Amino acid sequence: MQRALSVSRMTGNRSTFPDWYQAITREADLAEVSPVRGCMIIKPWGYGIWEEMQRDLDRRIKETGHVNAYFPLFIPLSFFAKEAEHVEGFAKEMAVVTHHRLKSVDGKLEVDPEAKLEEPLVVRPTSETIIGDAFQRWIQSHRDLPLLINQWANVVRWEMRTRLFLRTTEFLWQEGHTAHADAEDARAETMRMLEVYRAFSEQTLAMPVIAGEKPENERFPGAVATFSIEAMMQDGKALQAGTSHYLGQNFARAQNIRFQSASGELEYCHTTSWGVSTRLVGGVVMTHGDDDGLRLPPAIAPRQVVIVPMLRDRPEDAEVLAYGEALAKALNAQTALGDRLRALLDTRGMRSADKRWEWVRRGAPIIVEVGPRDAGAGQVTFMRRDALRDGEKIASQVMPREAFVGAAPALLAEIQARLFAEAKAMLDGNIRSDIRSFDDLAEHFGAAVDEDEGAAFKGWVRAPWSRPTGAELEAVEERLKALKLTLRNIPLAQSGAGGPCLFTGKPAVEEVLIARAY
Amino acid sequence: MQRALSVSRMTGNRSTFPDWYQAITREADLAEVSPVRGCMIIKPWGYGIWEEMQRDLDRRIKETGHVNAYFPLFIPLSFFAKEAEHVEGFAKEMAVVTHHRLKSVDGKLEVDPEAKLEEPLVVRPTSETIIGDAFQRWIQSHRDLPLLINQWANVVRWEMRTRLFLRTTEFLWQEGHTAHADAEDARAETMRMLEVYRAFSEQTLAMPVIAGEKPENERFPGAVATFSIEAMMQDGKALQAGTSHYLGQNFARAQNIRFQSASGELEYCHTTSWGVSTRLVGGVVMTHGDDDGLRLPPAIAPRQVVIVPMLRDRPEDAEVLAYGEALAKALNAQTALGDRLRALLDTRGMRSADKRWEWVRRGAPIIVEVGPRDAGAGQVTFMRRDALRDGEKIASQVMPREAFVGAAPALLAEIQARLFAEAKAMLDGNIRSDIRSFDDLAEHFGAAVDEDEGAAFKGWVRAPWSRPTGAELEAVEERLKALKLTLRNIPLAQSGAGGPCLFTGKPAVEEVLIARAY
Repeated sequence: MQRALSVSRMTGNRSTFPDWYQAITREADLAEVSPVRGCMIIKPWGYGIWEEMQRDLDRRIKETGHVNAYFPLFIPLSFFAKEAEHVEGFAKEMAVVTHHRLKSVDGKLEVDPEAKLEEPLVVRPTSETIIGDAFQRWIQSHRDLPLLINQWANVVRWEMRTRLFLRTTEFLWQEGHTAHADAEDARAETMRMLEVYRAFSEQTLAMPVIAGEKPENERFPGAVATFSIEAMMQDGKALQAGTSHYLGQNFARAQNIRFQSASGELEYCHTTSWGVSTRLVGGVVMTHGDDDGLRLPPAIAPRQVVIVPMLRDRPEDAEVLAYGEALAKALNAQTALGDRLRALLDTRGMRSADKRWEWVRRGAPIIVEVGPRDAGAGQVTFMRRDALRDGEKIASQVMPREAFVGAAPALLAEIQARLFAEAKAMLDGNIRSDIRSFDDLAEHFGAAVDEDEGAAFKGWVRAPWSRPTGAELEAVEERLKALKLTLRNIPLAQSGAGGPCLFTGKPAVEEVLIARAY
Repeated sequence: MQRALSVSRMTGNRSTFPDWYQAITREADLAEVSPVRGCMIIKPWGYGIWEEMQRDLDRRIKETGHVNAYFPLFIPLSFFAKEAEHVEGFAKEMAVVTHHRLKSVDGKLEVDPEAKLEEPLVVRPTSETIIGDAFQRWIQSHRDLPLLINQWANVVRWEMRTRLFLRTTEFLWQEGHTAHADAEDARAETMRMLEVYRAFSEQTLAMPVIAGEKPENERFPGAVATFSIEAMMQDGKALQAGTSHYLGQNFARAQNIRFQSASGELEYCHTTSWGVSTRLVGGVVMTHGDDDGLRLPPAIAPRQVVIVPMLRDRPEDAEVLAYGEALAKALNAQTALGDRLRALLDTRGMRSADKRWEWVRRGAPIIVEVGPRDAGAGQVTFMRRDALRDGEKIASQVMPREAFVGAAPALLAEIQARLFAEAKAMLDGNIRSDIRSFDDLAEHFGAAVDEDEGAAFKGWVRAPWSRPTGAELEAVEERLKALKLTLRNIPLAQSGAGGPCLFTGKPAVEEVLIARAY
């Protein structure tokens, strides 16, 4: 199942999966490292993908009754002191603002020591504490509940080892924060948003996932329960693509978020939080990319059909351009995947072959080339990015213009479905559930090698699990760590197969997913 | 022309214009001050308005050929040292990150002194320097030009005296940054975006503006020319609502942004930048608000028609709700102002009279109340927020249901047009151009009083201007400052009237706008 990296189609070193990933982010013009340690620049094509993701997910978040708001970037240090477990999980690496002024000293800019803040401000790594503080003011009565808020924002976590989209010091995300009158309602919200993420990931990103609950050692700091969706990348590793947390009354107690119930009593709220981030762009690359570059699911492609006119500095160029313009206009009047179709006529002053390859690397779902012959015959020659090659040959098709315009929405839907089906087959075909001992697990995954050296494809293992806790769970974690493995989640959909736990030997109560992970 | 503040309809102290402004932001649920000094929390209704503004302006920015991207929040201190003038303008008050870790000392969280950054990072006050650094890498040839980038982001400027939306330490904005091969193209871009802002402000925000060039003392630090749109608030003060800068080759030289021209020579680019921010929400409040609260132009109202069902805990409630639901659905299937109409059935468990007044204060353009009689008769009773009262009485209208649904788009368009016409009449009627000496100017504006004490309405003055520079301009600035006045801009549309300059007595070459300002 591992990607064949031998045929060099993109430039750059692609001898290992990380190299291949880096080559795609560069050659598909998605992002680049910035001069600011650990921070990335999201380039227009990469940002366009994020905008399409945002638009679709924002609609789903609003359809489930949430509204957007915006809270401060800075969080006073004292706010973190309130929630002990949360601090433990997050207090380590954060950007801290300590001064509010620069001054010029001998023509050199310096931090003005006289402008030291009384209380340092932390650049938000996540906003539970600052949003909880607002909730405590906004919520008085049971009539104020549920309170369903979402925020689109940048957050900062000081990371030591970064990789574009997957782990960066600053990243973009949405974070939902809700408050409820009772546990049942808050737990229902937690599951509702997990399902929103699953549907968004599978329907929009064409990225199949397994939804489940995290074992207690993988919970969000301060949460009662954490759920995740996990996606399989083409190197067999897992990517945590979204999380939804039931926080119980932990944050509400720490921040005094209370309401007067219908019976007049003062009670603590039950809260939730949930988020997905620009990491998903990396997930799409590692799910759908191939040796020619990125392949974009049409639902998130900033341009779904790109028309490259074959211009030769000859009089017939005008006819070709007019033909291309009319075609783009006709396509843009169509509806595809529930939205206005997004077509572009690429008129830049570059060689048309270079343009074609640029759009191949960027992953445009359908690439049309129109030359004088097409214009004359009223036809369209196009290639599908999901089925670019027939052996080593490029597979192009020809259709009458009107037929192509009419068929484009169905073609895009077909590409969307096919990318999902391919990824789903890969996921379903690479989860082993026949491993019955830790030794077999160790043998299956083999010695942990540094990922930069090109680890072999191993997929995931689904194993019987007795749900150990405390010290027993820590021991499991340690044994897995030696193999560079982690517990991903306990899938919501259980097979019901029993047997002894792979780690404790006790009777299993459920199955757990085990994998190497990003 | 000044708002009559005597009739108290909102709660809270509204004895002065600033009090009235504060009352609206609170009672229309737009925003509130946060526990973080100078930072605001934008509440869902206020953020919803910003989202509508973003959606409309983003479309205009893309229609003029720009693409969105995202650059780091942090800017290394050394980047600011490159552009001397820019530093002078911005170096004063900025948030500076100096450490990247907290640690627990005796159970207390502290900044870890061992995690001090080698180079301090400034939280972006604007992104010319960090985006210019990328441009320098991205631009090689004349074929890479023009490069037309926009960014939606949060920025931070450490403000000593803040007011919700108008001046906050953190705010949200868009910042356009473009690079061009020559001055002509860059200047055309500067004017194109000024015109985009003018059209957006007048057509979408229903906020009339005067577009013009800033005198040199009001230029953006490092710019060759700065243009602005200025709007008149209901207290007669000016609000700078958007700016567009031609930066010449200043930033390109400082950051080495060069390209190879068609003739093979290496040349510096000409760059521009332009931006508008959440300050516009404050502008909309001060342009359209009245004593009952906010009035929203339908183009930016998160909900354009709000239906309040009159429920009485009786069997007929079900019929009223069903009637309201069908009405909302029929309205949401309509197109208004070029977009899907946004209607809401408000089913919250509150008294219907409280709901109605809440929507009045929030500025929903059309508020419908449906009771059993309306449902029975198939009619709709509604009020227009732009014409809420007939004397002290609330002016409501009744229409057959089908007729109302059909008329709603036209009604919304009429409300949009009327709010603009009202504000335009106020602007046009309150610019004096008959003042011919500095003494008359001083007499017209009177002694400067602290705005919190309730300054009288003065409007603006348009005066002959000899375009002084250097020390002569500084002297003008000082004289105006004593009257708390500023030069706003030199309107693009000039009357051609000559005469001696109000300040220098020399022959005027143009007219300049003078006003008190936010």
